[in-house]
Amino acid sequence: MTAEHTIKAFDADLNHLKRKIAEMGSLVVVQVHLAQQALTERDVVRAQNVISGDKAIDALQREIEEKAILVIARRQPLAIDLRELVGAVRIANDLERAGDQAENIAKNVLALGGEPPPSSAIVRVKYMADLAIDLLNRVLDSYVRRDIDEALAVWRKDQEIDLANNSLFRELLTYMMEDPHTITPCTHLLVCARNIERIGDHATNIAETVFYIVEGHTVPGERPKGDAVDLSRRTAVGSSQDH
Amino acid sequence: MTAEHTIKAFDADLNHLKRKIAEMGSLVVVQVHLAQQALTERDVVRAQNVISGDKAIDALQREIEEKAILVIARRQPLAIDLRELVGAVRIANDLERAGDQAENIAKNVLALGGEPPPSSAIVRVKYMADLAIDLLNRVLDSYVRRDIDEALAVWRKDQEIDLANNSLFRELLTYMMEDPHTITPCTHLLVCARNIERIGDHATNIAETVFYIVEGHTVPGERPKGDAVDLSRRTAVGSSQDH
Repeated sequence: MTAEHTIKAFDADLNHLKRKIAEMGSLVVVQVHLAQQALTERDVVRAQNVISGDKAIDALQREIEEKAILVIARRQPLAIDLRELVGAVRIANDLERAGDQAENIAKNVLALGGEPPPSSAIVRVKYMADLAIDLLNRVLDSYVRRDIDEALAVWRKDQEIDLANNSLFRELLTYMMEDPHTITPCTHLLVCARNIERIGDHATNIAETVFYIVEGHTVPGERPKGDAVDLSRRTAVGSSQDH
Repeated sequence: MTAEHTIKAFDADLNHLKRKIAEMGSLVVVQVHLAQQALTERDVVRAQNVISGDKAIDALQREIEEKAILVIARRQPLAIDLRELVGAVRIANDLERAGDQAENIAKNVLALGGEPPPSSAIVRVKYMADLAIDLLNRVLDSYVRRDIDEALAVWRKDQEIDLANNSLFRELLTYMMEDPHTITPCTHLLVCARNIERIGDHATNIAETVFYIVEGHTVPGERPKGDAVDLSRRTAVGSSQDH
């Protein structure tokens, strides 16, 4: 009876954590989406909402971390159960950082002010954000369903964002060279694109964590990166490795 | 005797972790220093060494995280001891991310190629890196000595890097507007400065963790930021909140 009780209590703890991660994931997806809208519509009010909304995400991360560590200390789980808890801490950490990227995008929207960046570049940044939101949704889904095939699909797809970012970087440089008036807005856009690229990196990190939870070891092979050496030599600005 | 043995074993575990963090911290400081030299001397070989050196830091982070969690699961520590272990995980995480920033700087050195950025801007980036290295060294020292006064001094001083970054950003924009040839190198420099600013953020995070380990609660009050609203409205590119 006692052992059964312990298992039930542990399961309840674990389910609570899973729900909190789902809640946090939804919040982050909403933040990225709002930041994208704020950028494409240069909507200052929406940008300010994103900035003030980040606090709730930070609080959830701390809550998940503390809860997971308390469960580890209290229940002394082994193997798969321990991986579940370590995984929860890691995923919350990546979600928190993705939330910070959304906040950074919003800050750059405020910094843009009234100056319009080239509309074709805005369209490309929007496309990158769509990709990032899709990856976040899919990887959160793969976590809930313990679906490593889906996690690996996300893991492979992130390089599309890297490539889009590298090509956008080149494009922005040409705008700036052609017309110095675009330098300030293009620079802010470049930073936004970089933040989106890093949201993709966090989705990739989460995919690796899902794989680790299920399989008990890291994803074999090198992470596919969209910054091949020849490209990165000239335009590596966007090829952040902040994971 | 058993209790005493448990305490001794726990202390040995904790000391092992502290040594690993000191080792990791030294490696990160060296990486930031090498990245700074690579940038100021546009030394491609040194930059490549920084990039290949990041793997060792990543490995140490995983090792510290796994060890800390094993100790939590095995010894079920309470209060201060638990904070020590949670703190070790957090510090290793921030150090790993500071290491990634050094790697990003090195990648931008490769991307700079032969094009010289304005030398006065290089001098200012070097100054920012000096500040960041100083903060890292001091906060690591505050961790070893459990010195919260020193930790709080680091916590307050980070805004100097933020301010230097904001002012450098303005300066770089003027160079780019005056001479479109400088757009590519200035953009890379802008990204380097931003990475350095984020190293400062990680030092600040570590300062908060040291405070938490010793005091058991978070630092009261808002973190001082060098991006006052009026400034950030125009030049918030550098005011990353990636913490």
